[in-house]
Amino acid sequence: MPEQKVELVVIGDELLAGALKDANASWLADRLLSIGISVLRVTFASDDFKELKEILDQALARTGFVISCGGLGPTADDCTRAVAADLFDRELYTNKRLLNLLAERCKKLGRRFDRIARTQAQVPRGAALLANPAGAAPGIVLKDESRTLILLPGVPGQMQAITQTALIEYLKENFTLSVSHILLLRTVGAVETELAQRIRPVLARFPDLKVAYLPKSGGVDLRIQAPSERKKSQALKEFSRILEDDLYTVGREDLSLVVGRMLLNRGQSVAVAESCTGGMLAARLVDVAGSSRYFLGGVVSYSNRAKQELLGVASGVLELHGAVSSQVAKAMAEGVRERLNSTCGIGITGIAGPGGATRTKPVGLVYIALASQDSVRIKRFVFPGDRSSIRQRSVIAALDLLRRNLM
Amino acid sequence: MPEQKVELVVIGDELLAGALKDANASWLADRLLSIGISVLRVTFASDDFKELKEILDQALARTGFVISCGGLGPTADDCTRAVAADLFDRELYTNKRLLNLLAERCKKLGRRFDRIARTQAQVPRGAALLANPAGAAPGIVLKDESRTLILLPGVPGQMQAITQTALIEYLKENFTLSVSHILLLRTVGAVETELAQRIRPVLARFPDLKVAYLPKSGGVDLRIQAPSERKKSQALKEFSRILEDDLYTVGREDLSLVVGRMLLNRGQSVAVAESCTGGMLAARLVDVAGSSRYFLGGVVSYSNRAKQELLGVASGVLELHGAVSSQVAKAMAEGVRERLNSTCGIGITGIAGPGGATRTKPVGLVYIALASQDSVRIKRFVFPGDRSSIRQRSVIAALDLLRRNLM
Repeated sequence: MPEQKVELVVIGDELLAGALKDANASWLADRLLSIGISVLRVTFASDDFKELKEILDQALARTGFVISCGGLGPTADDCTRAVAADLFDRELYTNKRLLNLLAERCKKLGRRFDRIARTQAQVPRGAALLANPAGAAPGIVLKDESRTLILLPGVPGQMQAITQTALIEYLKENFTLSVSHILLLRTVGAVETELAQRIRPVLARFPDLKVAYLPKSGGVDLRIQAPSERKKSQALKEFSRILEDDLYTVGREDLSLVVGRMLLNRGQSVAVAESCTGGMLAARLVDVAGSSRYFLGGVVSYSNRAKQELLGVASGVLELHGAVSSQVAKAMAEGVRERLNSTCGIGITGIAGPGGATRTKPVGLVYIALASQDSVRIKRFVFPGDRSSIRQRSVIAALDLLRRNLM
Repeated sequence: MPEQKVELVVIGDELLAGALKDANASWLADRLLSIGISVLRVTFASDDFKELKEILDQALARTGFVISCGGLGPTADDCTRAVAADLFDRELYTNKRLLNLLAERCKKLGRRFDRIARTQAQVPRGAALLANPAGAAPGIVLKDESRTLILLPGVPGQMQAITQTALIEYLKENFTLSVSHILLLRTVGAVETELAQRIRPVLARFPDLKVAYLPKSGGVDLRIQAPSERKKSQALKEFSRILEDDLYTVGREDLSLVVGRMLLNRGQSVAVAESCTGGMLAARLVDVAGSSRYFLGGVVSYSNRAKQELLGVASGVLELHGAVSSQVAKAMAEGVRERLNSTCGIGITGIAGPGGATRTKPVGLVYIALASQDSVRIKRFVFPGDRSSIRQRSVIAALDLLRRNLM
């Protein structure tokens, strides 16, 4: 069975003016691929009626199936509904059920249901609607003998909510999809070229696996496409064996979520003391809802005074070894662990740049210490990249050090 | 003079698979607009030769001017150079000067200059090259009577480096550009609809100004296009008057940079105590290189123990008012200010959700306190949105409270 193809059209003048970054195309492409629909092309289109009509028309002629995001708002510059009606030669009418829903929604939010708000109840005749659990504009499906056009709102939260609740289901029911056998393996600890070398023998034995390397700052995701569920299981087994401890999860979970669950399962807790990362590690841990069950708190000891006052780092250690040293990282980890009474304490100190380097301490030099009940592990890194990249890599390295310690 | 138009083509299978997010299109569109070139359309294209050729061919036919990003690497799936040569009916040849440059570069990095690396010296005959200060692949310019095609690498750092050093200059020399009179005004404190209402009278008097509202989490940027430099100056004057203290900068500067400079100029310093934001405010302050001159450190007091142990918040205050209360925010701000001996102390406590709400304390409730030498200001917010959005808005609100206090 041939793979189902789709084109995406992302609508909005502000995208073309570089004033907004699109996050919808990649999110949607990823979700569609997971149900066996691959994206052939993505076009960013302006709000201009004529221009948008041409783009949608050509995309429909090429693939017969287009999903658009954006231009479903109530204001005059949102013309996607009208363009779609025109392309399918349907008239726009006021959908009574939708009108009632919108009126109710306005009442609940205490907003006026005026003439402008009412325009959102206008849909092309014969369209199917996909309920929007997160906002006003529903998804709209238009079909004829050879073409399917699905309109989604451009607000990411609403687009995602419609996709997850109604669109995926609709697509599975209305298209004959070849199941996609995709495996997402998330790793940390080895760089892309290293992974490629380790994986080569597996790919030689399983030449029908397709592997994509997706480097993130501080880790590499592997996306593996297998031709069947059986091959997918085989691939998982083989790759797990080869990636060993560098594989931290199968699927979408974030490293901080994985580490948090490990802490929880082992009845452990963590506190952090950060210098160059300046709170990024703490923020990453708190990203996970419910993290208060294992994350006790942290100190951003950006100044020497903070290191002494809040963590009890001895001034002698600071003077003798300098703020960026394995000794200070150790004292930070131990200090925060003791003060917050956590089972694990992490200390990070380093030079994120662009300034601050010395002859012996280059930009990118970072010490990370992990203190637990009866031991302290300290690792030294020299990370490449700019200030932001060095700090992000430090956060990942610290989470990974904790993960390996919990294994 | 009519505005110069361009189409962008962003190349890479991983973009279409949703595995990578594109950041090049918006960055490039923004820079091009600032020199008077507006982007008419953006297409994400696959690495497939035939598909890419069709996309570039059609884009060139529509606007006569296309810039592409991606597909200039040395491996077999990178075919942009070959497609471009084919479209302009030129052969690919090995450019000796480029070959020498690449060989030198490899030597410097200690890499092997093998057959694969050599392919990057292949360029279409008659092409002009734009030097790449950050990597191997130069930008490539192909021209005939009616068409200009510019190929840039897809690695964001390299694309940006070429654009800033060589491309902008090339474009200014080779195109007749109408100067673009764009004003970026960044505001915090008023929502989009509120700003629109305040601005309406100005737009009535200056109907040739084009205004775009760009809501960021916690603030709104206004992008104003004026027809002339004189009108742009007038607009700046009018908008400054109307936006008052909500306008925090003209241009691209981040709020944390603006606040940092204010602290520096006034010889002041800040320390922060964060609960629900969990280190995000500290991390945002540390984003700015050189922030150690005014940011002394912070405490992430995610647990009550951390609030007591690291900040000296009295257990009685926690018991009586609860961790999310104006009293605790105040005690946190005062505690961190005192411990780190800073002139300003900020305390943030709130409920970021999804759990943790009570009958009287909803998700989104956040207290922010600012302690200075002789006073404490406390603000209460109920922010909309999800966990991430509530935390980001809290950070912006805290920075803004500090900014207004410093004015």
